[in-house]
Formats: sequence, structure tokens, C-alpha cells
Amino acid sequence: MARHVRVDADELVDFTTGVFTSRGMPPPRAAKAAAALCYGDMAGISSHGLANLTQLYLPLFEEKRVEPDVELTVMADRGAALLVDAGRGLGLWVASEAMDLATARAAEHGIGLVSVRNATHFGCAGYHAARAVDHNMIGIVASNCGRQRIIRPPGGRLAMLGTNPFSIAAPAGDRHPYVLDMSTTVVPTGRVRAAARAGEPIPVGWLADNDGNPVTDPGAFDRGEAHLQWLGGRPETGAYKGYGLSLLVEVLAAVLPGAGLGPDPEALAGDGRASGRDDDIGFLVLALAPGTLRPIDGFLADAERMFGSLQACPPVRAQAPVSYPGWREAEHVAQSRTGGVALEASLHQELTTLAAKLGLQAPCARAGAR
Amino acid sequence: MARHVRVDADELVDFTTGVFTSRGMPPPRAAKAAAALCYGDMAGISSHGLANLTQLYLPLFEEKRVEPDVELTVMADRGAALLVDAGRGLGLWVASEAMDLATARAAEHGIGLVSVRNATHFGCAGYHAARAVDHNMIGIVASNCGRQRIIRPPGGRLAMLGTNPFSIAAPAGDRHPYVLDMSTTVVPTGRVRAAARAGEPIPVGWLADNDGNPVTDPGAFDRGEAHLQWLGGRPETGAYKGYGLSLLVEVLAAVLPGAGLGPDPEALAGDGRASGRDDDIGFLVLALAPGTLRPIDGFLADAERMFGSLQACPPVRAQAPVSYPGWREAEHVAQSRTGGVALEASLHQELTTLAAKLGLQAPCARAGAR
Repeated sequence: MARHVRVDADELVDFTTGVFTSRGMPPPRAAKAAAALCYGDMAGISSHGLANLTQLYLPLFEEKRVEPDVELTVMADRGAALLVDAGRGLGLWVASEAMDLATARAAEHGIGLVSVRNATHFGCAGYHAARAVDHNMIGIVASNCGRQRIIRPPGGRLAMLGTNPFSIAAPAGDRHPYVLDMSTTVVPTGRVRAAARAGEPIPVGWLADNDGNPVTDPGAFDRGEAHLQWLGGRPETGAYKGYGLSLLVEVLAAVLPGAGLGPDPEALAGDGRASGRDDDIGFLVLALAPGTLRPIDGFLADAERMFGSLQACPPVRAQAPVSYPGWREAEHVAQSRTGGVALEASLHQELTTLAAKLGLQAPCARAGAR
Repeated sequence: MARHVRVDADELVDFTTGVFTSRGMPPPRAAKAAAALCYGDMAGISSHGLANLTQLYLPLFEEKRVEPDVELTVMADRGAALLVDAGRGLGLWVASEAMDLATARAAEHGIGLVSVRNATHFGCAGYHAARAVDHNMIGIVASNCGRQRIIRPPGGRLAMLGTNPFSIAAPAGDRHPYVLDMSTTVVPTGRVRAAARAGEPIPVGWLADNDGNPVTDPGAFDRGEAHLQWLGGRPETGAYKGYGLSLLVEVLAAVLPGAGLGPDPEALAGDGRASGRDDDIGFLVLALAPGTLRPIDGFLADAERMFGSLQACPPVRAQAPVSYPGWREAEHVAQSRTGGVALEASLHQELTTLAAKLGLQAPCARAGAR
């Protein structure tokens, strides 16, 4: 295990806000983006947390692939449904802004759709979806990967699709919200690369070679010798469902608003390896307001009954109680707030160096941190 | 292989319309339900076709669990979103009616949600979703299984959820529409039982015993010795995603409208076997109208570009071209229209007997049928 330090959650968000502000983002929007990014580490989803600040987001600013202070442009407004051009705004901010717009429309019309094109990477899908829960609504957020192509369609020789994250969040009565946040592949690429860095083998089912044989060496992925598999695994166990869900995201998040597409004639020039850039990303942002259709107390009581019954299901192993997606992450966030956010020591050092360069206050390692 | 006969598609729909009419359904609505049911056999999804007429639907009428001539009751109407009580109407009809309502609302508001409670079994989810494609829209249809409980939550000892079908359909330009129609388990129960009837082993990954070991004897399922697995398979290959998608259906199709729930305190009285009845089913019926947000020609061209690029992907095996969900089923429907609908000879005999009993014209086996 890598060594970790713990830092105060608010200090981490303030620091990250400062970094985005230094790149030209107006402070309120920098704060919104920072909260979304820090959520990754706070929830234990470190593959989508601050590790991406220097690896992914700051390069976007440097390469002018993101516009720090652009306004969202409403291209069409039907009341319950909007088309928005994000003008290359930072996805971490755009997605939260779009969800806030969707919930406002849902409060009026029962449902609110914000279809977004020309966006950039938004971090954890579930973070943005869960904003709807604060309004006692159901939130759905999905993103294609623009023209980034990593995965092959079943039976195909060329990479044509991204990992295409999809998420839904809903109130669970008095319990932690239900938040499903998933890639449509068996795992996202970050999990494979983390195993490669750690020098650890990966489970059968994540990667396969050209002939469909399992590959457990994670390094084979970036060497182009093995391919990420679809959720569902083999054809006879439902690979078409993972592939089909990836197309769901591509249709709803990108074909609908007219964003960049993975499957595109330019993909046919590929050589089988990953290709293309995650620019002109499309988002699906949807909010449903149960309280506009029936008394909200009844809806919340039904949700409580359902998620409570799941948690009351007798477990196979006493030490592993039955749960639901979102519960573990919410517990992790609560621990991060009280006990500090765990960061790998090397990442903390990287952020400290960045802070010094930008004249910002670095998030301090807490006394007694491990 | 069981022996098959082929019958004329229109004759089959007329016969089925007659059966539903004989049970008290008004003829136009009986015709709508018949088209939905016959679609199963026409598309090659025989597990959801006429085999269910005597096994599933006629018993619903006999047991008064369905109301043949009830009107849908709009409980709330927000313009873009409606709550409908189906009053135990036949799901085969209710779901199509709800989609027609959703597309009408989407034409006006950009998106149309019809949230349905108190419904019954609707057959193939994808058939109803695809009605939206006739309007150049995207359709989404999902159904929970009321209080029917077949699958266990991961790590749990009791059955608490149904197979919870989910579907999405979208135009694919000049090509067959994209139609994903999936259960959230590895396979639906019908596939396991079909293998049991045929005396054939099933692939590793469909069933597992209490300890999580694979079971390849399909008969073990109805003996209560093995459990259907979630899409994603083992925990490390994404079982939480199949489980999470099942909860997505439960939330959107049943908690939202206030329908019967799988995970409910009464489920906790179970003994681990399947329990509960598929009454008070909830549906999610959603239509999105791209043409209200941007020129429809641009949307259709983008869809054509995407699905065309997928089909142009060089295949691993020359004889197995790359495709997408919905393509094979649409080809099957076209063949059924020209060459007749294939029915197992035993099923055809059953329908012929039923026709004689009801004084209806049975669908005739075509000359040259095999």
C-alpha cells in the first residue's frame, strides 16, 4: 500500500479553487469545479480525484482546450428541455451548472433535460447526478468521451468507443442516497493503469487479447496487446448489454446534442489502438421531480421502505451486510469530513509543489496522519 | 431443435386480437396488445411471444388480475410529465398507449415522461420503446416486476428483485433502429427454463449456488439450488452494476409512480426462494424529441454516421460483421413478414386448439413450412 496523508476537506477545496482561479476561472465557478474534483478523493474514488489535476485538467488549460470563463449558450429552450453549447467550459463546472438548471426546470415541468455539447471532462458522474437529491429529485448524468476511442465493438478490430460513464442518484429516505456511477466497460481504464503502476495482476475478465483469451497483465493494455472488455464479459454472459449501454450513452449524451462521436468515419482510419481526443464531449443531464406528480412524503417513504428492506436482507456472511450503490461512498465522504481526506503521499507532495509555484496555501498534512 | 411451422404474420395478429377481444378487450386495444405480443415471435424473441398467451396472459384474465376495458387514469399532469394509474389494464396495451402519450408530450415540450403504476406484464420492452422511433424520437421503457422476487441482492440470502427489463430505442438514420432490450440479470429466467426443457447445460456465469460456485444444470434454478446472477457476473467484474441497474429500474419504474416494490418488508419473510406476484407493476415510459432542440436532419445524419461507422468496423471474423442491438431483431421481423412467423409446432397446435374453442380462425401453417 502506498503511504497516505490526511488533509482537511475544506483546505483541499480552497486550494483547488485557488488553482482553478489562477487559470482564469471566476471564483464561484472555480469553487463549484473544485468541489466536484475533491469529491473523488473524499468518496474514495481516487481515480477521479486530485490525481487528475496535474495529469488531465491543467494540461487542458495549457493546451487551450478549455475556456475558463465562457458562458453556457442556450441553443434551444422548450421549457422542460434545453440544448446547451458549453463552449469548451470545464466539465467539472458545466455538469453541476447543467444539473442545477435541470432541477429548476423539473420543479416546474416534472422533468428537466439539459442536453450539452462541446464540453470537457466532468470527473465523477455521480457527484453531479446527486445534486438532484438535495431537491428530493432523481438525477441522471452521462457523458460520452468525445472522439476518444478505447474500446472495440464486439467482434470488431478497431477501437471506437470510450468508457462512457453513466450515473443515477435518488433519495433513499433517511438513508444515504442511492448513487450508481458506472462505466459501461467491466472497469474504467484508471483501474487497469493503477494495477499496472502497483505491479499487480488483474482479475480474469477485465482484459482479453485479439482472440478473446483473458489477460491478467495490466501492462498489456497500454502496450496495445489486450483490450478492455464490456460489462457482461463474454458474448454468452451479456457483452452486448455493456456495449448496448455504451451506445445508450453515445446516443443520449452525444448524438442528441450533436457532440463529437466515438464511432465516426475518422475512427475507421485507426490501427486497433486507442485513438482520438476527448474534446467536444456531450452530456446527458436529466432531473425528475417525483413531488410534482405525487406527495413527496409518499415518494420518500417508498424509497425508505425499499432501501431499508435491502439493508435488512440477511447477509450470506455476517460481516458483509447487504448494501446498495452510493452507501459506501457516502460513508467515505463522512469519514473524510471528520478525519480528513486521504491522499497518497506522492500526490500530496505534488500538490504542495504546485501550491508553492502558484503562491497558494497548500493543504497541510494533519498531525497523526498515516 | 424443435419442429417449427410458419404462419402468416397478419393472420397471427388477427387471431391474437380475436383472443383478447373474446376476453372483453375493446377491439382497437386488443389489436394494439396483439401486435405487441406477436412482435416477440416475429423478432425471434420467442420467450416473450405467443408462448406466453396461454401461460401468462390468459390466466391473468381468468384470475381477474387484469381489467380488460379499464381506462387509464391521469393522476397528475405537468405537461411534460404525467402520472398514470393503469387500473390493472393489460400491460401489452398500456405500455404502447403510454408511449404514444409520451411522444405527443415530447413533441410539445422536448421530452415526455409517463410514469405508470398498477399495470401488468408488457411483453417485449423494446417493442414499446421503438414506437418513439416512428416519430424520429428516442424512446425509453422499463418495468419492474411488481412484487415478484427472483434475484438476491449481492451478498444477500433472500430473493428481493425481479429481472427488471430496460430498453431504449433510437433512429439510426437509414438503418434499422438501435433497440437495446435487456434484463438486468445475466439472462432472463426464460432462457434458463428453455435450457431446462431442452435438457441442455447452460454456460458458466448464468447461475451460482449459495457459495457463489458456478452451476451449469439449468434445472437447479427452479429446484431453488442455484440463483440467477447479475449482469457483470462476479463482484470483481461488475456485479454491482447489474444490481445497480436493477435498482435504477425499481426507482424509475416503481418508486417514482408508487407501484409495488420487490424490496419491501414482506420480502424479508421469504425463505430464499422466488416469491411474490407480478401485480401492481410500474413502468417508466420516456420519449425525447431531438427535432425540438436542433434540426432533425442533423440529428438523423449524426445517427447514420455513428451506426454506419460501427457497421463499417473491420470484423475479427469476416463472416461475423460488427452490428448493434436491434439490427438482428429487425432483420428477423422482415423475414417473418415475407416468409411467415416461425412457431414451435407444439405452440401452433396449442393455438389451433384455442382457436377452435373460441370459434376463431387459427393461423394456418404455410405450405412448405418446416
